Amino acid sequence: MTDFWNGKRVLVTGGAGFIGSNLAIRLVDLGARVQLVDSMLPAYGADLANIEPVRERLRVNFSDVRDRHSLRWIVRGEDVIFSLAGQVSHLDSMEDPETDLEINCRSQLSLLECCRAVNPRARIVFASTRQIYGRPEYLPVDERHPLRPVDVNGINKLAAEMYYTLYHDVHGLATVSLRLTNTYGPRMDLRSDRKGFVGVFLRKALAGETIRLFGSGEQRRDFNYVDDVVDALLLAGASDGVGGQVFNLGHPRSYSLVDFVDALAVHLAFDRERVPFPPDLAAIDIGDYYGDFGAFSRTTGWLPRVDLAEGLERTIRWFRDPARGAGRG
Amino acid sequence: MTDFWNGKRVLVTGGAGFIGSNLAIRLVDLGARVQLVDSMLPAYGADLANIEPVRERLRVNFSDVRDRHSLRWIVRGEDVIFSLAGQVSHLDSMEDPETDLEINCRSQLSLLECCRAVNPRARIVFASTRQIYGRPEYLPVDERHPLRPVDVNGINKLAAEMYYTLYHDVHGLATVSLRLTNTYGPRMDLRSDRKGFVGVFLRKALAGETIRLFGSGEQRRDFNYVDDVVDALLLAGASDGVGGQVFNLGHPRSYSLVDFVDALAVHLAFDRERVPFPPDLAAIDIGDYYGDFGAFSRTTGWLPRVDLAEGLERTIRWFRDPARGAGRG
Repeated sequence: MTDFWNGKRVLVTGGAGFIGSNLAIRLVDLGARVQLVDSMLPAYGADLANIEPVRERLRVNFSDVRDRHSLRWIVRGEDVIFSLAGQVSHLDSMEDPETDLEINCRSQLSLLECCRAVNPRARIVFASTRQIYGRPEYLPVDERHPLRPVDVNGINKLAAEMYYTLYHDVHGLATVSLRLTNTYGPRMDLRSDRKGFVGVFLRKALAGETIRLFGSGEQRRDFNYVDDVVDALLLAGASDGVGGQVFNLGHPRSYSLVDFVDALAVHLAFDRERVPFPPDLAAIDIGDYYGDFGAFSRTTGWLPRVDLAEGLERTIRWFRDPARGAGRG
Repeated sequence: MTDFWNGKRVLVTGGAGFIGSNLAIRLVDLGARVQLVDSMLPAYGADLANIEPVRERLRVNFSDVRDRHSLRWIVRGEDVIFSLAGQVSHLDSMEDPETDLEINCRSQLSLLECCRAVNPRARIVFASTRQIYGRPEYLPVDERHPLRPVDVNGINKLAAEMYYTLYHDVHGLATVSLRLTNTYGPRMDLRSDRKGFVGVFLRKALAGETIRLFGSGEQRRDFNYVDDVVDALLLAGASDGVGGQVFNLGHPRSYSLVDFVDALAVHLAFDRERVPFPPDLAAIDIGDYYGDFGAFSRTTGWLPRVDLAEGLERTIRWFRDPARGAGRG
């Protein structure tokens, strides 16, 4: 894969965010000529410190993906485009659904329109989400599972993913979508209480605060360490024959929320308590989820290499490094 | 049902359009206090002549559903809201996808947000479409069929329908969606070449021009006469226990496009020819479609009463009436 990326012009939207920055660092190391686009909104996880290791070896274009005028110039000449910019809080999508629509739905359509107009040969990898399945009808969830999102964020991401597939089928753009599940690791935004339990639990555990488990804590999830997700994105961008397709990511092992907290407790000292589900979260909770990533595995050879125990250890070590992580928890 | 509507305050968005105007006329006759919202854009089928019979017995609010500020005032105090305003051309949605998104997706979310804020008890009936199924995997298509729209219009309508269901499930709004199939009848917009074959064929047959059938002409469809669709909308708006649900409309008999042209030829003289599918239409064609409307029938008692032969005869008579239809063909 090194050969593929060496010298390639690559655009990463949301490149100063959690996954975007990890991807950008890897791409720079692989010799790609990387451009990041980021609106630098802290609420969405953007932080220039994330790209500090490669700040002088890539180009940052400060711009919001909602700005369709600048987007038209930004996509020109790029060989591969990773569309990662997004609003990821399910709670925020319920309180301000039109902003979620603008970012997760309309801006994706604008990006595709820009590519169709000025760069129809670019490969485009879209970061979709398992949230579009809603409450699983069976487990593990494969790509044929019905799509019944339970919040506005899920609906908008679903529409966006469908645009990507459609622009392949009708206009011939080389798009591919990966449905990400819970991703964690270095550069994750731990500040927000509104972007899922993983970041909240990590922050509280690092700070020695009490972790509150909603409900039984027995809800199961699959977790991907961010390096494995970066591998998957790179494989999707470098593979022929995946145009117009949609793939789950996932992990061979699923864990309950209690398991997740137990894994944190191996390294960190904190208390835990069980509390009833808050009503706003209960309304959009999906119960157990873990995905079948066999299709992506068979197509690209991808397998997640980092298990939860090792991934959390690495993550904790990164956040505890006084040189980097101290100010972030 | 007369009792239910008598004295009710009813809002119809897109009320000067084809289906909206037929619905408004019926509602006025049933004693409802009707308000129409319409942007009066001719391309979307709006025509004040459509509501001529009841012009003095209802209120028209000229406004575009994209204008979320006026919408907030318009929905206040309404008992039932029929959300019919839409961009219906699949071809236009492919050429100007962001306008389609604004009307069919974002404006629907705005309408729901307005209702949540100022009128959470209104019943809301959304006109969805069979287009969200895409190419049928089996026939007749029921509501469990996978949703794989093949054009931007279908994706945006799908997202909108999901918002309506979600706002019931999470916020308790009394929403219900009907997935309409090919609707025809008086007040249909025959001027456009871009809104499906039914209007085009009718216009050409009325004018004695040659009808061009794409492909074999054996593609099957189901057709609903507009009075039957109005019945269905009224039943959906008056029924308890349908909150958050989604229902197909349809007809017990399906017909091929050739059958449709034959039915026109009973009354009108015109030529026909077969031509290959134009590429832009072939890319978004869905093959055969007809729907299973059993769920809606069982729930509300609805059955379409007008068969294609009778419906086309009535439609042709209406358009040929010199007092009304002459200038429309």
